[in-house]
Amino acid sequence: MSFRHVAIIGLGLIGGSIGLAVREHLPGVTTTGYDNDPDVRRRAAERGLADRICESSIEAVAGADLVILCVPVGAMGEAARALVPGLSPDALVSDVGSSKQATGRMLAEALPGRAVIPAHPVAGTENSGPDAGFATLFYHRWCIVTPPEGADPAKVAALVEFWRALGAMVDTMGPEHHDRVLAVTSHIPHLIAYTIVGTASDLEEVTRSEVIKYSAGGFRDFTRIAASDPTMWRDVFLNNREAVLEMLDRFLTDFAMMREAIRASDGQTLFDLFTRTREIRRSIVAIGQDDARADFGRKHNGDG
Amino acid sequence: MSFRHVAIIGLGLIGGSIGLAVREHLPGVTTTGYDNDPDVRRRAAERGLADRICESSIEAVAGADLVILCVPVGAMGEAARALVPGLSPDALVSDVGSSKQATGRMLAEALPGRAVIPAHPVAGTENSGPDAGFATLFYHRWCIVTPPEGADPAKVAALVEFWRALGAMVDTMGPEHHDRVLAVTSHIPHLIAYTIVGTASDLEEVTRSEVIKYSAGGFRDFTRIAASDPTMWRDVFLNNREAVLEMLDRFLTDFAMMREAIRASDGQTLFDLFTRTREIRRSIVAIGQDDARADFGRKHNGDG
Repeated sequence: MSFRHVAIIGLGLIGGSIGLAVREHLPGVTTTGYDNDPDVRRRAAERGLADRICESSIEAVAGADLVILCVPVGAMGEAARALVPGLSPDALVSDVGSSKQATGRMLAEALPGRAVIPAHPVAGTENSGPDAGFATLFYHRWCIVTPPEGADPAKVAALVEFWRALGAMVDTMGPEHHDRVLAVTSHIPHLIAYTIVGTASDLEEVTRSEVIKYSAGGFRDFTRIAASDPTMWRDVFLNNREAVLEMLDRFLTDFAMMREAIRASDGQTLFDLFTRTREIRRSIVAIGQDDARADFGRKHNGDG
Repeated sequence: MSFRHVAIIGLGLIGGSIGLAVREHLPGVTTTGYDNDPDVRRRAAERGLADRICESSIEAVAGADLVILCVPVGAMGEAARALVPGLSPDALVSDVGSSKQATGRMLAEALPGRAVIPAHPVAGTENSGPDAGFATLFYHRWCIVTPPEGADPAKVAALVEFWRALGAMVDTMGPEHHDRVLAVTSHIPHLIAYTIVGTASDLEEVTRSEVIKYSAGGFRDFTRIAASDPTMWRDVFLNNREAVLEMLDRFLTDFAMMREAIRASDGQTLFDLFTRTREIRRSIVAIGQDDARADFGRKHNGDG
């Protein structure tokens, strides 16, 4: 492993999981951690999310050869500027944000002349905060590394090696392509889920209690995603606007066609779509990107 | 238990699960089963989905005091007409369809003068067919009974008792209200999921392989629902058109507001929605209608 000391800035779901995964897989590597919130720092220390929880990011990054920013995309620039006084000249700075053009720009501006290679582990749960992380979060999940032009190949390779050591599979691509891919595989699904959960909770003809009781018909799947961290997701949408709006309009065009098929009682159009979407599910399960068990392996024994 | 002999017409996920659940919970009750598809009948016999698999629905319902139609909504009328010659005069006929105004009308037309009480167990998985059913599918799930006007209260009570015996909780309501409730908790979520999976698989800028690989960012949740039985779902939309279109337009109105918030970089509107949707998730988990474990309890060990 090229890195001896990893500093983690932001100790929520992703930052905490990185700390726990490093301890499990890279016992020779030291971790330091920092979070702006004193309650999070205290809880992170209790859980041992890093070997040492520091009282400032300057202290946390001192001596680190890899610094990973795990804060919401909108806070990335400020977090990067804050740690500059402690940063070693040859340290590599990376992040885990879901909007790679934006974080690449923010980090480059905040850290002129420094080695910056943004990355994005495509992994998570609906939980957030210092209690949410676990060491196996990145197992068999993709991490996308988006090296800027002119990035040092040795540093790119080291970052790839780091993520592989935590159990992830790694791809590299340009930040613009990343943002389009994630708009469709992550950002639009989240926006849809948040919106339909909001719609359902605002209805007058159907009570909120009914929506909750009868949610097993499909709605509950959307509520999991719609329970994700609000700050993180606000920042994703504000910082991947173009790709999100582009994919959103594709979805709306297709949705209008389905609406018209229902209005016109055009069963064939509905049946054709419903048939071909099964194949995508099969492929996702086949490559191990979702649980092969029915219903995601949810319990069916009455205890939730 | 008021019923001695339950006939199950249609041996897919729901019909098969009823048969297995009756065997587990009501050992004194005989079950017979029938399916139009000879391959399904053969597999149903191998799995023991009913005590006896019959070669016609007339034979299956002979002597039954409860007949449950577990076929797609669009096939309900024909399936009901076909079994009339075998039906006992005092048998209760019910169904499990997701569009209760439509199945109520179809069964009343097909079975004039007979006791008909439609019902809908709000339970399922993405799998279908004779291999998909299991005995605990209805545990701690709601079954909605929609008695027509003038239904015999004793027969309603018997049907409620039957579903409770299989582990379900039971509510009764009018079919019109049911159809509105399910439009929002089940039908619109399915239509959205089918549509976005279709949109993603049709993109040119993002390959299908990328959509599949990076699906863990949220998209894979939608693919589970979009793998549901195409015939069943086509029929649901064709037979609950008004409520679906009404709820669909509410969703589209809200979605347009979110689109505008992104376009205008209005982070506050996004944050406000993303914050209040968490509460619904908490309530669903609190009443045991979803798995309390993160990520639905999906495995995070690299084997899918």
